[in-house]
Amino acid sequence: MTDVAAVKAALKTQAIETPSWAYGNSGTRFKVFTQPGVPRSPREKLDDAAKVHEFTGAAPTVALHIPWDRVDDYAALARYAEERGLRLGAINSNTFQDDDYRLGSVCHPDAAVRRKAVAHLLECVDIMDATGSRDLKLWFADGTNYPGQDDIRARQDRLAEALATVHERLGDDQRMLLEYKFFEPAFYATDVPDWGTAYAHCLKLGDKARVVVDTGHHAPGTNIEFIVATLLREGKLGGFDFNSRFYADDDLMVGAADPFQLFRIMYEVVRGGGFTPDVAFMLDQCHNIEAKIPAIIRSVMNVQEATAKALLVDRAALASAQAAGDVLAANAVLMDAYDTDVRPLLAELREEQGLDGDPVAAYHRSGWAAKTAGERVGGAQAGWGA
Amino acid sequence: MTDVAAVKAALKTQAIETPSWAYGNSGTRFKVFTQPGVPRSPREKLDDAAKVHEFTGAAPTVALHIPWDRVDDYAALARYAEERGLRLGAINSNTFQDDDYRLGSVCHPDAAVRRKAVAHLLECVDIMDATGSRDLKLWFADGTNYPGQDDIRARQDRLAEALATVHERLGDDQRMLLEYKFFEPAFYATDVPDWGTAYAHCLKLGDKARVVVDTGHHAPGTNIEFIVATLLREGKLGGFDFNSRFYADDDLMVGAADPFQLFRIMYEVVRGGGFTPDVAFMLDQCHNIEAKIPAIIRSVMNVQEATAKALLVDRAALASAQAAGDVLAANAVLMDAYDTDVRPLLAELREEQGLDGDPVAAYHRSGWAAKTAGERVGGAQAGWGA
Amino acid sequence: MTDVAAVKAALKTQAIETPSWAYGNSGTRFKVFTQPGVPRSPREKLDDAAKVHEFTGAAPTVALHIPWDRVDDYAALARYAEERGLRLGAINSNTFQDDDYRLGSVCHPDAAVRRKAVAHLLECVDIMDATGSRDLKLWFADGTNYPGQDDIRARQDRLAEALATVHERLGDDQRMLLEYKFFEPAFYATDVPDWGTAYAHCLKLGDKARVVVDTGHHAPGTNIEFIVATLLREGKLGGFDFNSRFYADDDLMVGAADPFQLFRIMYEVVRGGGFTPDVAFMLDQCHNIEAKIPAIIRSVMNVQEATAKALLVDRAALASAQAAGDVLAANAVLMDAYDTDVRPLLAELREEQGLDGDPVAAYHRSGWAAKTAGERVGGAQAGWGA
Amino acid sequence: MTDVAAVKAALKTQAIETPSWAYGNSGTRFKVFTQPGVPRSPREKLDDAAKVHEFTGAAPTVALHIPWDRVDDYAALARYAEERGLRLGAINSNTFQDDDYRLGSVCHPDAAVRRKAVAHLLECVDIMDATGSRDLKLWFADGTNYPGQDDIRARQDRLAEALATVHERLGDDQRMLLEYKFFEPAFYATDVPDWGTAYAHCLKLGDKARVVVDTGHHAPGTNIEFIVATLLREGKLGGFDFNSRFYADDDLMVGAADPFQLFRIMYEVVRGGGFTPDVAFMLDQCHNIEAKIPAIIRSVMNVQEATAKALLVDRAALASAQAAGDVLAANAVLMDAYDTDVRPLLAELREEQGLDGDPVAAYHRSGWAAKTAGERVGGAQAGWGA
Repeated sequence: MTDVAAVKAALKTQAIETPSWAYGNSGTRFKVFTQPGVPRSPREKLDDAAKVHEFTGAAPTVALHIPWDRVDDYAALARYAEERGLRLGAINSNTFQDDDYRLGSVCHPDAAVRRKAVAHLLECVDIMDATGSRDLKLWFADGTNYPGQDDIRARQDRLAEALATVHERLGDDQRMLLEYKFFEPAFYATDVPDWGTAYAHCLKLGDKARVVVDTGHHAPGTNIEFIVATLLREGKLGGFDFNSRFYADDDLMVGAADPFQLFRIMYEVVRGGGFTPDVAFMLDQCHNIEAKIPAIIRSVMNVQEATAKALLVDRAALASAQAAGDVLAANAVLMDAYDTDVRPLLAELREEQGLDGDPVAAYHRSGWAAKTAGERVGGAQAGWGA
Repeated sequence: MTDVAAVKAALKTQAIETPSWAYGNSGTRFKVFTQPGVPRSPREKLDDAAKVHEFTGAAPTVALHIPWDRVDDYAALARYAEERGLRLGAINSNTFQDDDYRLGSVCHPDAAVRRKAVAHLLECVDIMDATGSRDLKLWFADGTNYPGQDDIRARQDRLAEALATVHERLGDDQRMLLEYKFFEPAFYATDVPDWGTAYAHCLKLGDKARVVVDTGHHAPGTNIEFIVATLLREGKLGGFDFNSRFYADDDLMVGAADPFQLFRIMYEVVRGGGFTPDVAFMLDQCHNIEAKIPAIIRSVMNVQEATAKALLVDRAALASAQAAGDVLAANAVLMDAYDTDVRPLLAELREEQGLDGDPVAAYHRSGWAAKTAGERVGGAQAGWGA
Repeated sequence: MTDVAAVKAALKTQAIETPSWAYGNSGTRFKVFTQPGVPRSPREKLDDAAKVHEFTGAAPTVALHIPWDRVDDYAALARYAEERGLRLGAINSNTFQDDDYRLGSVCHPDAAVRRKAVAHLLECVDIMDATGSRDLKLWFADGTNYPGQDDIRARQDRLAEALATVHERLGDDQRMLLEYKFFEPAFYATDVPDWGTAYAHCLKLGDKARVVVDTGHHAPGTNIEFIVATLLREGKLGGFDFNSRFYADDDLMVGAADPFQLFRIMYEVVRGGGFTPDVAFMLDQCHNIEAKIPAIIRSVMNVQEATAKALLVDRAALASAQAAGDVLAANAVLMDAYDTDVRPLLAELREEQGLDGDPVAAYHRSGWAAKTAGERVGGAQAGWGA
Repeated sequence: MTDVAAVKAALKTQAIETPSWAYGNSGTRFKVFTQPGVPRSPREKLDDAAKVHEFTGAAPTVALHIPWDRVDDYAALARYAEERGLRLGAINSNTFQDDDYRLGSVCHPDAAVRRKAVAHLLECVDIMDATGSRDLKLWFADGTNYPGQDDIRARQDRLAEALATVHERLGDDQRMLLEYKFFEPAFYATDVPDWGTAYAHCLKLGDKARVVVDTGHHAPGTNIEFIVATLLREGKLGGFDFNSRFYADDDLMVGAADPFQLFRIMYEVVRGGGFTPDVAFMLDQCHNIEAKIPAIIRSVMNVQEATAKALLVDRAALASAQAAGDVLAANAVLMDAYDTDVRPLLAELREEQGLDGDPVAAYHRSGWAAKTAGERVGGAQAGWGA
């Protein structure tokens, strides 16, 4: 039997970081559709993020993306966040939007471009010092589009060198989270294409280097929860970039495409001792055609629901059926938790925290969408700057 | 034994259409890298296309994309092309870049948006009348990102209605080529996701409606040459959008990712009686990081090489081994053609046509890249306008 | 608001056919693990199937596979079934296990082999006459392993001819269900690889020919519910072969790998008017390592649960949100039904039918497994005969 | 410019190991088609392997599979091989065909089963001592079919323990090659599903543990040459199991499905210093419907042709274009080698070695097929014993 009170207590500790860029415009290579009321500055993004936290109680930190969130005074931005009940979270680097990066950044054949990229990464650590952020999230768009375009192995050497420089620079309480991605924007060979490559680099770098799992960055059919279990076993799981996908890196709301998969992932997190602050739960999504703030609220709720189900698994019964080799009974224990409707439990939990049981409805009632649509007129809406 | 003279004669008749947009800037959702000398107008795109035809002798027509190539006087544009040895080819519609199209175009839930989209398609037929183009190429970005977002079946009804209106409008010598695509930009359900859907619509529309096969628009592992063979058997293959891919719709140079697949496709074209003007050979590619004109020249050459190999297959020997059920012998006949180095044959053929045997080298010697980089300064470079 | 009583009434009409071969041994090319108590004859398979129906009340028919279920007197077998509360369902042909079929059956290059295969299919119709079966289910293992091995298009011609012969032979109340499969056992080109091919053949054959959707027979990422919606719109959906998969044609219990997908499929069935006897719900699974009868019971329950959720969708609210273009609201209506725990509703429904609310537990209490393990000793256990 | 004499000299040193099981019967779960003349014993398999070596001069060793090749006296078997110009190669373990292994072998929840599996692995090392084999090739069918069936992480612990025991037992000149596989026969979670998992284990085990890359064991779209380059960079590439595939682990002849991929893999081997005896080139294929010996000869030739092309790459020109960031030029250097028809070079090389330039034709002329079909009558043909 599962202790529901313990489940609720655990759920109350869960913090899900939202990404500043999810509040801005995004799209595909075919079209970026704009929306009314989209923030025009990092501060307005924080205003929106504060709404997500206000209604969910579970999204206390916000990830920044440099240069999209570049400001003159990061300490002031951190105070701005604090005044709204938020903290600044991971700093995300960007080494893919300067013209210099056409053939890569830290893996570029030209040493001058590599130096420029490393300088940006070091700048990000400076920003972390100012914001008090713990995590530097590194995603590299580096790769090649055509066989022969560059030397696959030499690019690994260059990558290793850049990572070592950055790792060396990190403070005692800082970490680097290395992200892998199956493909895109590189179409032939991506320089960090899979967890094995990220793991091999982190292993050599040292204890401050961890792998981050973006749930949309795998080959078709990949068993992501296996990777989660393995990285936890190796002590190298740094966190998640949550989103969901049917095809490639679709960046849909987490839990929207395959809620059962999200549950299985969260089960391995719980089972592997990963439900601690050492493993960062972050969203990394786009809301191309749907309203952004309610989509983010819904995503936070989806993670909470998957976590609740994972916590509800009767682990003693599961272990017993597994030990007995009873395939159907063991599977049934897991499915029993998954099939449970945890929405009442989460509504109750929210009400215990003084929140509305239905965060989306409460947000809609708040009038925030109309207010920002009316006020945020003129200026340039935030976006990817692609 | 294959008759090499006949192969050469056939190759001399092959025409490969290049797309106006491949001469402009393109990229991914992360970044569009610009290049020096990129055309700033439809006329400059035609100037570049004329170079491709000048050096290959095999690219006499250019596809237009509306509105990217919108001009006041299409007849004048057609004359401009003719003065450079070119003709205007297929007209490609665009119903995905207006804000109205956020939830679709001809499948949109709102009838007003559907009317707007159909009006654009009819405008494209007007343009065909002016340019003398035979083919209207229809690719719809329509689809949904989330389960439940819209009614899958109702969208098919709307699509059928729009297509019927356009088909009705076509002149006696005009056709519509309906393109299917596995996914992107829609991430849950695409309204024309596979050849079966395109075929079912074309069948009901009538004889002017044909399916176009974009080689990058299939699920992983799909046997494209099977689709080609089937559509030819059904009399419904209208043409190809050529490109290549390792992952999704990468839009790399045709033949770059899997030259053996391209050969197998061309073999089914030849075997199925598709090597006629009824089947349009068109490129549809992006050159995000590589020089555009030489990439297009190379792509034309890749199609020629695959075609040459397909024509070299000893079909009598193949039929004999197939009839005997000799798996290895039949495979060996096909591979023997594929393994042949046809570059000397094609160089010879070009020289017989008064061309340089090496079109890429000849282009580089021409000084066109330096000339356009120097002259095309200022103004707005052409691109997708995303 | 959804009418729960109407949902229950609908669910009571649902019949899910179980396949005789799921009661026998199965495995992979690496190993077939046997289990105690496995049936040794078609009659013992029916005995097991009767247990599934006894505890679920929802599995009244059993599909046969010829030759695996070949008997001297099919009418007697039908009576044997009736005495156990069952009826014989679809007849499944097998044209892949004779040595003659090494290079195919109805598509084989040798006309003699094709004649043999057609004779088998006609024999299956004779059996249908004797058993009173409505549906002939045709799955062809035909295809080629190597490019060039045989002529892709000629094989289609042969296929069309064979199908026409069989279609002609069907009685007024008989149908043929043509199954497609992405790959396996053919590894290069499969002769009926996708719904488009099956549809094109059925269209020409006539009204008795329908497409059957095996949920495990698609390319990675394929949107199966789209195919279901499309085939229903075309009036060509004959039924389902249910199972689930993570990778290829894994043949796991339906609903085990992606319960959300199964729900979406059932929603399109309901929405498209497919919840009628015209659309056959059949299981087609293997239970390689798990106990067979409880796995089949669980599978029947999984289909029921997905159906219940699909019926619970608030279609008025969904249509309203879709018409308004409210992406998140429309998605939320669908998810609300999916997130509902329908197990209590189904338990109640079973109890109203005089059944145990928990069919798996009731089966385990019945002692059938121990009884058959004790009695079915000696003889040859049923299997695929591969 | 490439030195053709050096290329030829290198090619003469290449040894490609053939697997004993490729000479026996194989098939899919649907059917194993037998062929006349198939060996009935390990000695007859060696007789066939000797023919492959006789006509190619490049297949001097034969891999054994235990228990399929179990004999009383392995030293005698090794002498039998030597008398035919062969040596015994890698020993392949089999822990998937005993009934005890239904839920796994070294990862099984029951310690007694794990002990049995480890005992088999140690027996294989004993056999290596007797045969003089260097490599123990470990492929584990271990995994689970259903979520929850067993504890993913605990299975890793069990795996690590078993591997450590075996690694400890290896002699100074012996190695273990750990194979990974994306899926099959496990359908939910495979215990060694990717190179990262195999690498992580090998890293901890020590220097005698290496990863083996089976070219058919990856997710769709995986860039295999990247993995090869990475493992070589890490000093952990032990060898290859060559075959080819369009879909899953199809086990077709290497080079048959994607010859360009095979070339890219061989290029990374050459570039990464892997063209040494430290990296074992082994075939691991099935010849389900094609004649076995000529299929193996053809496969050896395919590896040779890909290697020849890889050796022909003008590496100075390539490095120069890469350093200049000239995408098209660099790609063109690679393609120039790939597009070369190397069959004349290899024919010449064979003739210099006193062999027929066309090994397949020479084999067919030898009469071996008719001879063995006539002589190998009665007894049990070798196969997988599934």
